[in-house]
Amino acid sequence: MESSRRQIEVMANLLGSNDVQAEVNRAHFRKHHCLAINVMGSPGAGKTSLLEKSLPHLCADLQVGVIEGDIFTSKDADRIAVYQVPVIQINTGGDCHLDSKMISKVLPEFDWKAMDLMVIENVGNLVCPADFDLGEAFRVIVLSIVEGDDKPAKYPVIFRNAKAVVLNKMDLEALTDVNMENMKHDILAINPDIQIFEVSCRNGNGLQAWISWLSQEVKGYQENMI
Amino acid sequence: MESSRRQIEVMANLLGSNDVQAEVNRAHFRKHHCLAINVMGSPGAGKTSLLEKSLPHLCADLQVGVIEGDIFTSKDADRIAVYQVPVIQINTGGDCHLDSKMISKVLPEFDWKAMDLMVIENVGNLVCPADFDLGEAFRVIVLSIVEGDDKPAKYPVIFRNAKAVVLNKMDLEALTDVNMENMKHDILAINPDIQIFEVSCRNGNGLQAWISWLSQEVKGYQENMI
Repeated sequence: MESSRRQIEVMANLLGSNDVQAEVNRAHFRKHHCLAINVMGSPGAGKTSLLEKSLPHLCADLQVGVIEGDIFTSKDADRIAVYQVPVIQINTGGDCHLDSKMISKVLPEFDWKAMDLMVIENVGNLVCPADFDLGEAFRVIVLSIVEGDDKPAKYPVIFRNAKAVVLNKMDLEALTDVNMENMKHDILAINPDIQIFEVSCRNGNGLQAWISWLSQEVKGYQENMI
Repeated sequence: MESSRRQIEVMANLLGSNDVQAEVNRAHFRKHHCLAINVMGSPGAGKTSLLEKSLPHLCADLQVGVIEGDIFTSKDADRIAVYQVPVIQINTGGDCHLDSKMISKVLPEFDWKAMDLMVIENVGNLVCPADFDLGEAFRVIVLSIVEGDDKPAKYPVIFRNAKAVVLNKMDLEALTDVNMENMKHDILAINPDIQIFEVSCRNGNGLQAWISWLSQEVKGYQENMI
């Protein structure tokens, strides 16, 4: 009992400290009229692919920056750098999630004069990142439908505080046993206000609705600042 | 610095305490000549599907028990119970991994007189479960090839101490951009001794090699006990 109580206390301290820095980060993004989003999902859900497909459209009329979170390697940042956007790779070196202090350390690396949108791609993990506020304006979950329709009910916490969920790999729907109605029903049961997008990063279907929505969110955020 | 040092100390304490209980669990399995395996992988990799497809064959000449680890719901245990094997669901209630104390609590629920194989299916997570020894004889990773060939290099820790990796959803290979040679090369670079199985739980291809190998592992383990 003693050791588990100590674990809980320390976890509470860590979260408290994380939340303080997250508010500092949030104030930074607000000051620069930059919408920051925290993109989370399992390994291989398609977080980086969604970014690759969205960046050419988003960059047509927005300044976009990217923070890539991974345990090891710069594979994701290398993929994003091709699109000529400023990108910083954070390697957690073992940690299963990004935290607000990691974010604060890389903020000085960007030019904030005209930044409209900062996309933070978290470590691939459907559990732990949900506990760590990074200072984002809102969260987006990417879920590969190939993971199965039972995933929202089994991993509800991460869906609870998200503004949108992008259901990816829809091109594979007919080749899996996924029941899309069950999946969407369970997501809305956890979070009735969540926006749901059904897309295929592979064939491009559904991406326009997601991109338009995100662009509108940036504009709405910036109009509220004036 | 102070808070991060304290975090590391407490993590070390937690792991120390986990390792002590893991050895007690391992002694329990040994005493009962029961091979225990810890099955890990991302959400939706196909851990439960692999079990569903393997159990009818394994149960032909082995007594098998299953421990299902999930954050919430008993969906996986419900799927396994259909196969008439003893199964216990552990709900971690938020924790992103099983630990050895959770396992020790459910061991008295099984009849150990003739148990040959205990399959422990961990929480869907390619990161955190790797840090927690449950007392298993060895670890098996299930990786959906749809997650992409970059996953072993990005999440190397979990592959490092595993005895086998089951590459699942091979039926979808032609419909994805996965490069199987790269994936296998990176797995073997991390762990040259790992057994690799390429399977499709959906169409059954490749399952026989995995099932035969696992049956032989049980027999080898039991022969070493005599």
